[in-house]
Amino acid sequence: MKRKTKMKVLIISANGFEDMELFYPIYRFREEEIEFDLASFKNERIRGMRGYMAEVTITLEDVKPEEYNLLFLPGGKAPQGLRKNHIVKEIARHFFQAEKPVAAICHGPQILISAELLKGRKATGYFKTRDELEEAGVEYLNQSVVVDGNLITSRNPADLPYFFREVINLLKDSSRNGKK
Amino acid sequence: MKRKTKMKVLIISANGFEDMELFYPIYRFREEEIEFDLASFKNERIRGMRGYMAEVTITLEDVKPEEYNLLFLPGGKAPQGLRKNHIVKEIARHFFQAEKPVAAICHGPQILISAELLKGRKATGYFKTRDELEEAGVEYLNQSVVVDGNLITSRNPADLPYFFREVINLLKDSSRNGKK
Repeated sequence: MKRKTKMKVLIISANGFEDMELFYPIYRFREEEIEFDLASFKNERIRGMRGYMAEVTITLEDVKPEEYNLLFLPGGKAPQGLRKNHIVKEIARHFFQAEKPVAAICHGPQILISAELLKGRKATGYFKTRDELEEAGVEYLNQSVVVDGNLITSRNPADLPYFFREVINLLKDSSRNGKK
Repeated sequence: MKRKTKMKVLIISANGFEDMELFYPIYRFREEEIEFDLASFKNERIRGMRGYMAEVTITLEDVKPEEYNLLFLPGGKAPQGLRKNHIVKEIARHFFQAEKPVAAICHGPQILISAELLKGRKATGYFKTRDELEEAGVEYLNQSVVVDGNLITSRNPADLPYFFREVINLLKDSSRNGKK
């Protein structure tokens, strides 16, 4: 069951994260023995909307995006502040330029809107962000998970199981293709 | 990646469940396409300690325990009430008598104490339940997951990734051995 790989995931979040959307990935990556960093503004614990606390492992300033195979963007209120941060936007652009997988759920895709990465892409997101996604040039699909090339998006916590099937699949493909 | 099986899991919980300990399993079983029922006192939605709501699919009275391959007992405050219920205790005894897997986390093992099923077993649980477990005849091990025959136990939400590796393993074994 154990897969030994050098895959590493970068999760970016902040205070106000949607608790399931951060902890399902954290636990899921641990279960699969996939390494990850949780990056945020400061190297402190961050608090979710429902009160769960998560350990930040690296500051945004210290992130070297070329070291990671997949970018993971949970939702909640955290993306509101993150989308205004220039380092976050540069990191997101690195993943798109390198065609490495980017997984964003709920309000997570707002970061990709602000980084101007979604024009002409198929995607989904929290229903309240639909108008904003469409204005950014997205073909919005109201389904549990949308895969468009390197981009995987979902709408809300209830989509996590379907989202994660695709995230794990893309990580495996990425590993098989030897992309780093 | 998809596994087509006839495995079915019975989750028993109630209001006051530990949110991650109920939702990680729900999402995880959906991700693996493993069928489950969530049983509780009434066929209503139940609310977690942190406010997440879960859909009950069957009442305790209607549960036919022989239809399930694994019993899953999340923690939180829910086991306080469940451990006093005679149907819950009968269901737990059915799984032990049939040597089918039983997975309990945090305060979940309290239900097995009340059903008098833990004497002489190795197990773990939430640290505050250690004295009670030992008084019930358990050899308490302070580790993220303890597997003793059909019994899998863990301490708290942070153990979920390690707990689930074993839960998924035991479900696969159970399926391979043709146990129902």
